[in-house]
Amino acid sequence: MAGRLAIVAGGGPMPRRLAETALGAGRDVFILNLDGITDPATAQGLPSATVGIGQLGRAIDILHRENITEVCMLGPVKRPSFSAMGLDARALSVLPRLLRTGKGDDALLKLVLGELEREGFRVVGAHELQAGLLAPSGRLGRHAPDGDAERDIRLGVKVAHALGALDVGQAVVVQQEQVIGVEGIEGTDRLLERCAELRLAGRGGVLVKLKKPQQERRADLPTIGTHTVARAVAAGLAGIAIEAEQTLLVDRAATIAACDESGLFLVGIAPDP
Amino acid sequence: MAGRLAIVAGGGPMPRRLAETALGAGRDVFILNLDGITDPATAQGLPSATVGIGQLGRAIDILHRENITEVCMLGPVKRPSFSAMGLDARALSVLPRLLRTGKGDDALLKLVLGELEREGFRVVGAHELQAGLLAPSGRLGRHAPDGDAERDIRLGVKVAHALGALDVGQAVVVQQEQVIGVEGIEGTDRLLERCAELRLAGRGGVLVKLKKPQQERRADLPTIGTHTVARAVAAGLAGIAIEAEQTLLVDRAATIAACDESGLFLVGIAPDP
Repeated sequence: MAGRLAIVAGGGPMPRRLAETALGAGRDVFILNLDGITDPATAQGLPSATVGIGQLGRAIDILHRENITEVCMLGPVKRPSFSAMGLDARALSVLPRLLRTGKGDDALLKLVLGELEREGFRVVGAHELQAGLLAPSGRLGRHAPDGDAERDIRLGVKVAHALGALDVGQAVVVQQEQVIGVEGIEGTDRLLERCAELRLAGRGGVLVKLKKPQQERRADLPTIGTHTVARAVAAGLAGIAIEAEQTLLVDRAATIAACDESGLFLVGIAPDP
Repeated sequence: MAGRLAIVAGGGPMPRRLAETALGAGRDVFILNLDGITDPATAQGLPSATVGIGQLGRAIDILHRENITEVCMLGPVKRPSFSAMGLDARALSVLPRLLRTGKGDDALLKLVLGELEREGFRVVGAHELQAGLLAPSGRLGRHAPDGDAERDIRLGVKVAHALGALDVGQAVVVQQEQVIGVEGIEGTDRLLERCAELRLAGRGGVLVKLKKPQQERRADLPTIGTHTVARAVAAGLAGIAIEAEQTLLVDRAATIAACDESGLFLVGIAPDP
């Protein structure tokens, strides 16, 4: 038996879905809400507790008290500045290490996961709990990229890798071999909204979204869903390229159907690092 | 004698200022307006002609007819997609080379300058015509970066170099050692406007703006001025770091005064490549 599972819930509907999948598989599920971040519907009808984003020590105490054996983190976490996080003693204790490793999202997540493992919890990725969550390789819908789009994808891969290696962002929009926009902390949705205004006349661009090369795979994997497709359509894109086996494809059938209907291609690629 | 000077005028007030400086130095000045891009006030009272942004052949014919010996390009050019540029035969003739070198701004500028030189024109940077236009090294106003800001600057330099090497953008905003935003084709002003919404609580960030490592120095050097400072203030930044001897500091006295009044530092740095 895998024991009791805690889902540390970021924003959006994904943590709730994962909880339901795990419950359906007979798992005993506990929700750890992040104050001001988790959707209130996530823990409905399930055992849960709530911690502030800086309360690492309190979170660990709760997980022990609840006899948790496995922990899964899922859902976007828009984190505030460190000064606004209300760091508790345990969180403060990892800060010096954080100062050495850099303060990007990936560096921070690795430290938090390391602390959880040090406490004896097994940390698992959402894709280990829910089959079919990772995007497969190849063409995923009816439409395929043409030669022009392939060129845009190649440039997008180069830029996304360079940015990811610096722990900046995962996504880039390329149109007609020009980099239109690059993701910082604003997230992919806002990047796409901006690119709708910045789009060039003529042939539409592509969204390329990749895992950061050095990224911890058990948290914050690149994610796309129907909301991504809707914004890609509004930005006039020709299609979307995501990293195969490294991207969470939420609501796969609906996401692929949305691409098919809008004429967008959706491909899982395996970029050379 | 340096002969007759043509200023190929991008947007904003800088081309007019440069024209006045050159006139003041006794130069014979001709303005080549770019249709839809050049401020109409630029050529007022000066000999001029107007070409579309894709009319390279026509531009060269005009420059020959006007007995131009030196050409200087200055001011932002928001270029449309290639299909919307209305490329003439000469412009089309360089396209195959462009397809090989990439379509970023720097690649495009290098090709255009190369064509002008092939025609016998001497291409000069604005800083060669106007003394004091390049930012010097070191602290430029009353305020200086502290240790925290120095750390943000170091991270910004890394990211700006990686982006610049891929011909993406010149500017990045870093706050509390997190990359808040990265410049694509939207330009530094819009990057700063976005960062005003994305800013974290607590200590303010820095704008780092550098020449792309491989960049042609005679066109599109990084530029800042009072408009940059105003947006940096609105974004809550602690200061601005620009590349010394590689950045056009427009209206130096007013820009430094604006930083001083707002409590922002302004430093010219010499980043290691």
